[in-house]
Amino acid sequence: MHPKDANPAHPIHDLLSTRWSPYAFSGRPVETTVLCSLFEAARWAASSFNEQPWRYLVATKEDTDGYAKMLSCLVEANQTWAKSAPVLAIGVASLRFSRNDKPNKVAYHDLGLASANLTVEAGAHGLSVHQMAGIEPDEVRRVYSVPEGYEPLTALAIGYAAPAEEAPEEFRERDLSPRPRNPLDAFVFADSWGEAAVWAGRDSA
Amino acid sequence: MHPKDANPAHPIHDLLSTRWSPYAFSGRPVETTVLCSLFEAARWAASSFNEQPWRYLVATKEDTDGYAKMLSCLVEANQTWAKSAPVLAIGVASLRFSRNDKPNKVAYHDLGLASANLTVEAGAHGLSVHQMAGIEPDEVRRVYSVPEGYEPLTALAIGYAAPAEEAPEEFRERDLSPRPRNPLDAFVFADSWGEAAVWAGRDSA
Repeated sequence: MHPKDANPAHPIHDLLSTRWSPYAFSGRPVETTVLCSLFEAARWAASSFNEQPWRYLVATKEDTDGYAKMLSCLVEANQTWAKSAPVLAIGVASLRFSRNDKPNKVAYHDLGLASANLTVEAGAHGLSVHQMAGIEPDEVRRVYSVPEGYEPLTALAIGYAAPAEEAPEEFRERDLSPRPRNPLDAFVFADSWGEAAVWAGRDSA
Repeated sequence: MHPKDANPAHPIHDLLSTRWSPYAFSGRPVETTVLCSLFEAARWAASSFNEQPWRYLVATKEDTDGYAKMLSCLVEANQTWAKSAPVLAIGVASLRFSRNDKPNKVAYHDLGLASANLTVEAGAHGLSVHQMAGIEPDEVRRVYSVPEGYEPLTALAIGYAAPAEEAPEEFRERDLSPRPRNPLDAFVFADSWGEAAVWAGRDSA
């Protein structure tokens, strides 16, 4: 068992329990066919009115200039470690429904559904994904000519996890420490807010 | 192969390709231990600063009053079909970081990550999840005393899918028709907005 594996209180699928967000990636590139499968997985996520509001900008390390351009769109602290990832991506949400131009309240949510699918698929290939909210949206918008109505929201570092020793020193500890989580009864409620569902009671979490 | 299974252009994991959103559920209840695993899966999702901004209100059909209460929080069109689901849930996002009370821009996104995890786990148990944006957030807020700073965003109908014939007539067609998706090159860009990544080019999607 990897030190970063989940320690679930109830059994969950291996693809979910072994997912974690590494701060170090090996130099091994991601095969193009695998990349296709990752975004194909995102493609089949659910979305409100099947709007599919997700867009991804993607750069691989082989494309030196393209990679540097994308790396510069992350906040500096994230650049420090994310630069070891062979693939970077930026998740962008389309903010309005194409069928009626009305605001899509769940655009960010549905981008999350797609990125989670991508992450599960990555796990099935032995890859890890480290998502970040720490990006410079205005820089993304400028550098990639992102049009009005679209919002750059997240970045994803994708690759094969490397041992924690290879992470920048200031992040090494995080690559070794266990992953704390709130107990089930802190977020699964039944009759009223804050009232844990009986089956999610403290003794089981 | 089920008519609603994905028709992926690139291979993806079975748990992702067989996921779809049914309009009819069988009467079979969901075992409590399985319910625990579903929300446990949500629990281990990634989130910005490990905020875990997701909360879920959950009602099972055995609890007649609680179930009716939750059903009344869905928009009417969704009530028509969702009432066959043995379990209903409402996804709520915590809008501010607990560590500094600053707005969490990715709160909805991270709720999406959690609900996608829940959906994958459901698939592993032979269950289906049909997510909805069509809820009455003010009604949820009132009925469940949802405090300021939390936003009810989605509902989830959870159960074992039933044959399309059991769906209300107006939804039956949707339970049989294939699931259209934009091609990869419509949402995976490289150097600039709208410019498909070479490996995601039209011929492969």
